[in-house]
Amino acid sequence: MTTAAVPVLAFDVFGTVVDWYGGVAREVQAEMPDIDGGAFARAWRAGYTPAMRRVMSGELGWTLLDDLHRQMLDQTLEQFGVRHLAPERKRHLNKAWHRLDPWPDVVQGLSRLKTRHTLCTLSNGNIGLLANMAKHGGLPWDCILSAEVFRAYKPDPSTYLGVARVFDLAPSEVMLVAAHQDDLAAARACGLRTAYIERVAEFGPHHPKDVSPCTDNTLHARDFLDLADQLSC
Amino acid sequence: MTTAAVPVLAFDVFGTVVDWYGGVAREVQAEMPDIDGGAFARAWRAGYTPAMRRVMSGELGWTLLDDLHRQMLDQTLEQFGVRHLAPERKRHLNKAWHRLDPWPDVVQGLSRLKTRHTLCTLSNGNIGLLANMAKHGGLPWDCILSAEVFRAYKPDPSTYLGVARVFDLAPSEVMLVAAHQDDLAAARACGLRTAYIERVAEFGPHHPKDVSPCTDNTLHARDFLDLADQLSC
Repeated sequence: MTTAAVPVLAFDVFGTVVDWYGGVAREVQAEMPDIDGGAFARAWRAGYTPAMRRVMSGELGWTLLDDLHRQMLDQTLEQFGVRHLAPERKRHLNKAWHRLDPWPDVVQGLSRLKTRHTLCTLSNGNIGLLANMAKHGGLPWDCILSAEVFRAYKPDPSTYLGVARVFDLAPSEVMLVAAHQDDLAAARACGLRTAYIERVAEFGPHHPKDVSPCTDNTLHARDFLDLADQLSC
Repeated sequence: MTTAAVPVLAFDVFGTVVDWYGGVAREVQAEMPDIDGGAFARAWRAGYTPAMRRVMSGELGWTLLDDLHRQMLDQTLEQFGVRHLAPERKRHLNKAWHRLDPWPDVVQGLSRLKTRHTLCTLSNGNIGLLANMAKHGGLPWDCILSAEVFRAYKPDPSTYLGVARVFDLAPSEVMLVAAHQDDLAAARACGLRTAYIERVAEFGPHHPKDVSPCTDNTLHARDFLDLADQLSC
């Protein structure tokens, strides 16, 4: 594969670019010192896939991730026996997802990759969430693409093919970069190239994730600096 | 007005950020030396408002600006008596709109404004066009918003209100920055703040535009450096 053949790199965001576990756990702990922030973060995130499915099955009309996060927050608070969090505190806590920090290699890695590629997000996060997160973390995206643009959530093919369409490119001229094999598999089925990123601590330092290579991916990289090396950036 | 009250600046693009006349005229001239490039650029651009209207009236289904530009190009070639431009040359020329240069004050002005505000586009250009243009000109947008996101063309209220909605803000917390009084008037009717930018040479050096102030605007600035001064950036 020549790198010149892949003008656009599209990045999954939660877990791949930013540490959702660390950021959410920290804010939950600060807000509710009696709760296990890490367990709360994992439980909140666990509502994510079922929520996506409810939208994509048509059970729920089109709903932005901010609003899904808010519903999932209520369920998680219930689950952890929290009954008296004020509405404005819930609203603030829900935006913890806008304030997540990037992994340490990300800003330097993206800055290098940006010299030879167009970098966009391809996330189920809504545009405002992703823009606020980029401002917070100094993420140098060329373009923020989101489920909100395509009105469909990953792994719907219209999201992966939508990136190629936006840039008037063939699917093989776009590479999805993600820390999740299921996301990459869905992109590959649409003809995109794929790069897997190891994020062993995505679910917290004491819950290491299996980051074994899958030979179906175009590239397998330790982090964004390794990806930049492999793409000669 | 305190600048802290306006977290988001949304920028019109063609004429306000980039010199469409200069860029298109130059590429037309290079492609077809016998044609008056400047006159051709103005004629091509003159098809813009009628094309928007055809979409927004429902006469034409939702169509991206790249595709409208292509139809307008065919009409303009016809009008100038050009019959034998090859399809791949037409396709290349149509993307002249992706390669427009920013006015000289723009990159420095945006870089200063970005330190205290979130900067987004609000243009009728499609996302890919705006992203390619930003890459070409080094425009440091925080976020690219477009008619394509809202599936409506300015001056439809859903575009101006859509920016506020994306960022979960009141309309008065968004300021439209534009070199066109009609665009600003439509934004103001939706409750946005407005800043007019003088671009006297928008239609070419020999066709100066009236850049008289309109007192209804929140701000009137010579260029983006003046706007940064006025917003204390």
